[in-house]
Amino acid sequence: MPDKIIRMQRSETDSSARPVMLAIGGDSASGKTTLTTGLVDALGADRCLAICVDDYHKFDREERKKLPFTPLHPDCNYIDIMEQHLQLLALGRPILKPVYDHSTGTFTRPQYLEPKEFVIAEGLHPLSTKLTRACFDVTAFLDPPEEIRHEWKIKRDCAKRGYTVEQVRADLESREPESEQFIRPQRRFADIVVRFAPIPSRADPPGTPLSAELMLRPTIRHPTLSNVLSDDNRTAMHLKIMRDRDGTPTDCLHVHGHASAEEARQLEKSIWQELNVPGGPPPRLGEIDPGVRSEPLALTQLILLYHLLQARE
Amino acid sequence: MPDKIIRMQRSETDSSARPVMLAIGGDSASGKTTLTTGLVDALGADRCLAICVDDYHKFDREERKKLPFTPLHPDCNYIDIMEQHLQLLALGRPILKPVYDHSTGTFTRPQYLEPKEFVIAEGLHPLSTKLTRACFDVTAFLDPPEEIRHEWKIKRDCAKRGYTVEQVRADLESREPESEQFIRPQRRFADIVVRFAPIPSRADPPGTPLSAELMLRPTIRHPTLSNVLSDDNRTAMHLKIMRDRDGTPTDCLHVHGHASAEEARQLEKSIWQELNVPGGPPPRLGEIDPGVRSEPLALTQLILLYHLLQARE
Repeated sequence: MPDKIIRMQRSETDSSARPVMLAIGGDSASGKTTLTTGLVDALGADRCLAICVDDYHKFDREERKKLPFTPLHPDCNYIDIMEQHLQLLALGRPILKPVYDHSTGTFTRPQYLEPKEFVIAEGLHPLSTKLTRACFDVTAFLDPPEEIRHEWKIKRDCAKRGYTVEQVRADLESREPESEQFIRPQRRFADIVVRFAPIPSRADPPGTPLSAELMLRPTIRHPTLSNVLSDDNRTAMHLKIMRDRDGTPTDCLHVHGHASAEEARQLEKSIWQELNVPGGPPPRLGEIDPGVRSEPLALTQLILLYHLLQARE
Repeated sequence: MPDKIIRMQRSETDSSARPVMLAIGGDSASGKTTLTTGLVDALGADRCLAICVDDYHKFDREERKKLPFTPLHPDCNYIDIMEQHLQLLALGRPILKPVYDHSTGTFTRPQYLEPKEFVIAEGLHPLSTKLTRACFDVTAFLDPPEEIRHEWKIKRDCAKRGYTVEQVRADLESREPESEQFIRPQRRFADIVVRFAPIPSRADPPGTPLSAELMLRPTIRHPTLSNVLSDDNRTAMHLKIMRDRDGTPTDCLHVHGHASAEEARQLEKSIWQELNVPGGPPPRLGEIDPGVRSEPLALTQLILLYHLLQARE
């Protein structure tokens, strides 16, 4: 039971000597980097180490061409070394992380990383095993509707990685069986499941920011939201208990894309007040592009921030 | 006390699940590879993993040019990661070892290594910290006289690494202060100190193999040699108790270069009989070049082999 052992070791380790660990899982182009960037900005890069745990590939791009699986398949990755590195970070120890260069598809010089007060590990497989999950204080999974994620992936891979739309579509198609088998099942191990999407029942004008639906599972203690929010689902923000797909009870926070800054601010303030932290919430949460703020993203980041700071106490 | 913790963890771990670990320390060109190769050959590559622990450099060759120290300096190496990897191997776990390419002076794709029944870790720093030392069942240090080592280094670096004699001499000179400060002090932590050298008092004809002087410290239980060997130091092989440089008592086995194969065979047989292993000693011990055998090397390898197999029991 190595997962129990790491849990025990973490409990025994002086909490000032080990970092608070957050996992952000989700498929390719599901918004992990956007979410992470805002958190690092809010905490400060001196206090927070963000790592992408997708560099534990067994094969380089050339070798992979001859193989019947995509990088989503666990057999394509040294999951055991990822587990090992997450355990080491969780116990406050440094790692020498492999580095995969996406531009050339080869491995380069490994990177020496020391944990800081907070460690955010984002990637495709951070919640894939009992042992990885045992390393985290808080776990999140990004679960946008597939059509939205495909749009995001096409936009990003064409703009930043030099692919054509057809190439990205073919890639998405070839990855679909492994997404279903290995990536999406991690959703059920997250304390918080985040779904950015337009609200199906509404015809919001184009340009309305996406809404967020945050499933807040009672696996960790969330901030009290019921003081501020009603369960009237006609309001721009509301909280509702429901059953998840597997029947387990959960809270569900909806933040509509058209929620006003003022409404959001009130909720932010209430969450922040539950923390014993001076000052107000970090001002730049929710920034999508410089100067462009999404209230649903800001609230999502704030709730994650709440958990990180709470765990530090 | 992380060194105590690793010792305890190793004791607790089912001994069939963790490898027997041998360290072979020593300066550059002191004969580590020759010694290791014979051991791997004797045990079989399927049972024995040999790793060189000199790839934990912090800097590549270009970066090092601007720095005031050579690769012998601990600050030039991620000693903490080497410690971590030795601990992992010692507990039977895999590592992703960094790989430094000596031909280009840069870092390349890391190597996934799983421990086998036996692990031999050879290099410049395997005995440099309490924590590394706690990972080993047996520790050896190669301690040839400096003039012999210099000859070996010039021969090897010119033949295999494309340097000129002057370059190697300059390199040796620049490394000398760090050899003295960081490499040679590891000698005192070895269970076995091996010194290949001509015998100063004799004028053996050229071509006589080097003699071996093996200091067998009572830090581990050595095979009983006193049945077979006398302490008459005029014989080709003899055993003698003496004080080491620091005054501690130790056994010292001398095997002269001119010892006959027959004399050596008798001692080999007696050592092997103390092990509960079927068959006789591996036939190719002591091979320097194909078909060329050194009895002193063969006996050195046999004694290390004895300890590896004994620890496995």
